[in-house]
Amino acid sequence: MTVDVFDDPTDTREEILAATYRCLREHGYADLTIEKIGTELERSPSLIYHHYEDKDALVLACLEYLLEYFEGELGQEGIEDPPARLEELLEWWLGAEVDDEWAGFVTAMFELRTQAIHDAAYREHFTRSDRLFQASIEAVLRAGVESGDFRECDPAAVAATVQATILGSVLRRSSTDDDAWLDAVRDELQIYLDSRVYGTSTSE
Amino acid sequence: MTVDVFDDPTDTREEILAATYRCLREHGYADLTIEKIGTELERSPSLIYHHYEDKDALVLACLEYLLEYFEGELGQEGIEDPPARLEELLEWWLGAEVDDEWAGFVTAMFELRTQAIHDAAYREHFTRSDRLFQASIEAVLRAGVESGDFRECDPAAVAATVQATILGSVLRRSSTDDDAWLDAVRDELQIYLDSRVYGTSTSE
Repeated sequence: MTVDVFDDPTDTREEILAATYRCLREHGYADLTIEKIGTELERSPSLIYHHYEDKDALVLACLEYLLEYFEGELGQEGIEDPPARLEELLEWWLGAEVDDEWAGFVTAMFELRTQAIHDAAYREHFTRSDRLFQASIEAVLRAGVESGDFRECDPAAVAATVQATILGSVLRRSSTDDDAWLDAVRDELQIYLDSRVYGTSTSE
Repeated sequence: MTVDVFDDPTDTREEILAATYRCLREHGYADLTIEKIGTELERSPSLIYHHYEDKDALVLACLEYLLEYFEGELGQEGIEDPPARLEELLEWWLGAEVDDEWAGFVTAMFELRTQAIHDAAYREHFTRSDRLFQASIEAVLRAGVESGDFRECDPAAVAATVQATILGSVLRRSSTDDDAWLDAVRDELQIYLDSRVYGTSTSE
């Protein structure tokens, strides 16, 4: 996974958030320390403490930054080819290939989700980011219905279902030594989408 | 959720595992200590240390015990009414009502899954328990195909898909303040099962 949002930080705050993101991806949340972020940044930890009270304040600011970036992205561009975009999305989440960056990012997100079970600030973040994730799938479906590529359906409901299946698949894949079932889930998701979204019939 | 496996411990080891299970459900994994389990058990922590090296050895033994119990259950009884059983299963995981015991159990399982991302022993457990979860759904589907209640399908593939959708839904529900999407996912899962499993047509 490449998130280019952090490729070109413009000030100290963005540099710190970019380093936090890289450290999260590399070390995970449990092993993350302000000291490690300082090392990544080649600056003293005290610089970071000058901007952020503790590790969680920093991680939450990093998540907030990512969320705002994706919120901005979502409204920006039109969706040219909805079927291709939907394919791309499924491939990105459920494709056979997993590079280390992607795996690191996904792992860190699950660790942070576990924080969300007990911690209101993380919970608020994942409430918003799951809504955004759903909205991003929904936008592709809605564009496809409008363009006539997809049949009439309930885009919000289908989006929430695709999202749940993705989340569950990525969780099972990340926490077990088994991905023999993954191709089958992808095929079944395709069968579901064939009956619900693809095709030119306008009846539900 | 009531897991009656621990209702009637027969020896000290089972008493310790039962207390561990109750503590996990109540306090979660992060806040679990051998001392808390001792308090729950009304015995000295040294008794526990006599049987188990540390917290993780104890938690893994508890998970193993649960897994073996469910493995035994799976083969035991025939499935009388497969459609009713499938409904029951979906209601259990995706139903509107969530009691505190259920929520505590589910929360602890997500915490332990996060351990599985880094820790081989937890990973091995979730590899086995996810296979068992899939096998339990698959058994219901297979019974329904055999009884003629369900149409011909690929029970393993459908089971893996239902499982992924459940896992993702429960994760989103546990880590956010939003469950407005849940009914829609249940309805869509029903639409998927209608096209794939229910009905008397034998064509795929």
